Amino acid sequence: MKKVDLREKFSQFNEHWQPKIVGELNGQYVKLAKLKGEFIWHQHADEDELFMVVRGRLTIRLRAEDILLEEGEFFIIPRGVEHLPVAEEEVEVLLFEPKTVVNTGDQRNERTLDHVERI
Amino acid sequence: MKKVDLREKFSQFNEHWQPKIVGELNGQYVKLAKLKGEFIWHQHADEDELFMVVRGRLTIRLRAEDILLEEGEFFIIPRGVEHLPVAEEEVEVLLFEPKTVVNTGDQRNERTLDHVERI
Repeated sequence: MKKVDLREKFSQFNEHWQPKIVGELNGQYVKLAKLKGEFIWHQHADEDELFMVVRGRLTIRLRAEDILLEEGEFFIIPRGVEHLPVAEEEVEVLLFEPKTVVNTGDQRNERTLDHVERI
Repeated sequence: MKKVDLREKFSQFNEHWQPKIVGELNGQYVKLAKLKGEFIWHQHADEDELFMVVRGRLTIRLRAEDILLEEGEFFIIPRGVEHLPVAEEEVEVLLFEPKTVVNTGDQRNERTLDHVERI
């Protein structure tokens, strides 16, 4: 039982698009990630996913609209909704999602993570 | 599907110890609360609970130790662990917990909320 300092955790890694697990509760993970550039269109059939911006700006592109998130804002992507995260500059985000989530959702390619590190 | 701006949501209420629902996903709620003073010792038999400090400082007293949370820090209280949140000055917190959580856990008194408002 230890507290988690977001700043300290973010200082532990630099790679983009590789979320790290920093907490677990009720079958969900709290993850931190640094994002830069464009990910891939994907969806999660059975999982809702929360993105909160801790530092920087993130655009979550949906098929119908773009959601621009600034520091201190979050957005919940409902299950089954295709999305594409895009960050012009590096952004630090916090994710809340079920333990079962695979980063690329229904897509599987070289960006798919088979293992998510705990820090 | 709307983004949530924490600052804007916190500006909508002033009362202490009355969490507001600002998001729902995977059977969990995201809540915001303003706390000041001392709550009551309680525990949640079946739910883990996350407290993240958005502004200010919060002490979570456990029977074995005190956890001091500053801005940008979170702590997960495992189910079954007695805790007592204390804030000398007003603190703004984000909570992440199952929809089933009752604020006073295994205790029921005048601080128990039978209804949690959505904002």
